[in-house]
Amino acid sequence: MTELPDGFAAHVANVGVKDHTDDFVVITADRPVPAAGVFTRSRFVGPSVEISRSHLADRRARAIVIVSKNANVANGPTGTDDATELVDGVAGRLGCEPADVLVASTGVIGRRYPMDRIRAGIRAIPAAPHGRSADDAAAGIMTTDTVPKVAETTVAGSNARVVGIAKGVGMIEPDMATMIAVVCTDADVSPDELDTTFRAAVDRTFNCVSIDTDTSTSDTAVVLASGAAGPVDAHAFATALEQVCLDLTKMIALDGEGAETLIEVIVDGARDHRQAKRVAKSIVNSPLVKTAVHGADPNWGRVAMAVGKCSDDLDIDQDRVVIAFCGTEVYPTPVDDAALAALSDEMRSDVVPIHVSLGIGSGAATVYGCDLTDGYVRINADYTT
Amino acid sequence: MTELPDGFAAHVANVGVKDHTDDFVVITADRPVPAAGVFTRSRFVGPSVEISRSHLADRRARAIVIVSKNANVANGPTGTDDATELVDGVAGRLGCEPADVLVASTGVIGRRYPMDRIRAGIRAIPAAPHGRSADDAAAGIMTTDTVPKVAETTVAGSNARVVGIAKGVGMIEPDMATMIAVVCTDADVSPDELDTTFRAAVDRTFNCVSIDTDTSTSDTAVVLASGAAGPVDAHAFATALEQVCLDLTKMIALDGEGAETLIEVIVDGARDHRQAKRVAKSIVNSPLVKTAVHGADPNWGRVAMAVGKCSDDLDIDQDRVVIAFCGTEVYPTPVDDAALAALSDEMRSDVVPIHVSLGIGSGAATVYGCDLTDGYVRINADYTT
Repeated sequence: MTELPDGFAAHVANVGVKDHTDDFVVITADRPVPAAGVFTRSRFVGPSVEISRSHLADRRARAIVIVSKNANVANGPTGTDDATELVDGVAGRLGCEPADVLVASTGVIGRRYPMDRIRAGIRAIPAAPHGRSADDAAAGIMTTDTVPKVAETTVAGSNARVVGIAKGVGMIEPDMATMIAVVCTDADVSPDELDTTFRAAVDRTFNCVSIDTDTSTSDTAVVLASGAAGPVDAHAFATALEQVCLDLTKMIALDGEGAETLIEVIVDGARDHRQAKRVAKSIVNSPLVKTAVHGADPNWGRVAMAVGKCSDDLDIDQDRVVIAFCGTEVYPTPVDDAALAALSDEMRSDVVPIHVSLGIGSGAATVYGCDLTDGYVRINADYTT
Repeated sequence: MTELPDGFAAHVANVGVKDHTDDFVVITADRPVPAAGVFTRSRFVGPSVEISRSHLADRRARAIVIVSKNANVANGPTGTDDATELVDGVAGRLGCEPADVLVASTGVIGRRYPMDRIRAGIRAIPAAPHGRSADDAAAGIMTTDTVPKVAETTVAGSNARVVGIAKGVGMIEPDMATMIAVVCTDADVSPDELDTTFRAAVDRTFNCVSIDTDTSTSDTAVVLASGAAGPVDAHAFATALEQVCLDLTKMIALDGEGAETLIEVIVDGARDHRQAKRVAKSIVNSPLVKTAVHGADPNWGRVAMAVGKCSDDLDIDQDRVVIAFCGTEVYPTPVDDAALAALSDEMRSDVVPIHVSLGIGSGAATVYGCDLTDGYVRINADYTT
């Protein structure tokens, strides 16, 4: 079991949003603490994101309440009223200001919360939650996830820990943040340092994952720092925070709807980081590359196609591009059929790395995705409104 | 049977590029005639596209040779030599300048033409091809297509005809042109008018189809005008040309790999045409929308998500958006469960229209795509290099 860091507790319950699995999680610090958040850029954002963004303006928070299996998105003014009542209720139970409570919610769009059940759930929150299990909290925020996602590490040179939980398996190509991720640390970090460090970590981790190119209306990533473990080295903290975010990112990609293989696309030799990320996203998002990986087929022609379709990048020159699967160059140096067969065997693995060098400059990026399977189609054709 | 327009003939043969189906098509006019072309913007373009683009600089062509089941892409200088030998050989047989011969090629990437078989195929071209069947030519350019694609119409107020053939079912989100499409007309049209009219038609038809967001390295759309039917009204010609391109576009979408349903997305009330097309593409490309259509699920939340992820369009306001499936508004005015069930029945059809009004301005666009099915995954996971 992974415990939350010192200074944090969790209340995890089923209030009956959809079924009998846990769907109502409150993670609370023992007082208002430094906090930062990154949210979806969707133009169809829900009130959860709007409220949390506003409540983080002072870079402090006491608690976050997370409702799963209902996104409370596209419900108009009623949806905003429901979200406000939820936040006010949680604040009342914990004895803090509503402005210190954040809220996140994912699941079906366009359906109201069952407010009677939500109200009963609020009344059942203890004044001082004492649960310490990050695993329980991670399980409580799942929707179509098949496994709870928890990552932890310690900050080098200190006793401080960083513990993160996340959910999300579909509608995932975060643009500024992702799905729901909550990271707690007992390191003593200032609000400004926390904000800067978290945004940098999110950009290199959650913002580098794509399961299906679809950006959720509800993406929310939040970090809270209780300070209980005292001061830490800034660089060591940044490293620890990024490690936890990266571990969660890989868990999300590997648990993508129907996914069987994690695809790791490394692009280097680009003009700059932005170009490298754009090309890497083009590869990891290509349905033809995703199905080739699913079929364990080292079909580098499809990777070449995905590089080629970045047609605004006029400095991409096919004569300078190098493509490798699982560490073996396949273009431009040709490999024979025996080598292709060996590569195909190597691709029947949990992780398939695809490496593309553009031969332009020194920009690099790594992004994460998953294969496209019959399972993805079945899950999403059968999942009903 | 659809005949080619007056002034055109076709030679259709199997040369054994991959199997025993026809794979080698030469469409020829009786002399060099006005011609125009639009090509892929891919940075991994093949020599076929490079040669055709260069040979169309004078807006005239005598013939186009089309090889299917091998794209001749990413083969380096050898690939260019092979393509040049092919074009020179065809010109030699027809007795015209190589600069009047165009070439197009689709199929596997990174594998050389079987040049011995190509050479034998060139030797078998008659000096004056006399085949007139557009259906045979359409069948001869197929790769994974399941049906040949032929469209025809007449130019109002004249005897002139417009006949088009096309192929393409995967790796299809054309950026400037599409797959392979060849349109022949016996209307007498100047090279400049042909070029302008064709580009406009392609922008509203082939450039509005997306099967899987993947842009081919080989997309080529070409039109040739023999003039045999004499002059025509410019507006009537533009209408006829666009009609043929639109019919072919819909055939391509409906024959998308694994597709069972044509999705027609109409976006209006946008700031301008560009915004409307961007939003429409976001909807038609969303794997979650595509799987919802496959499941006959009027899941408008996913359409809202796809609108919302156009996050750079800051003027999109969810409170002004209206969403309809099959002509029935589903957002913001809610529909009850009975109406949703009726809509689901209506969606079990060959064509599902999705209509989104943004409430901003008067820009509009219609794009075409298809559902995402288990069949797409199976075709592309099993198709091997």
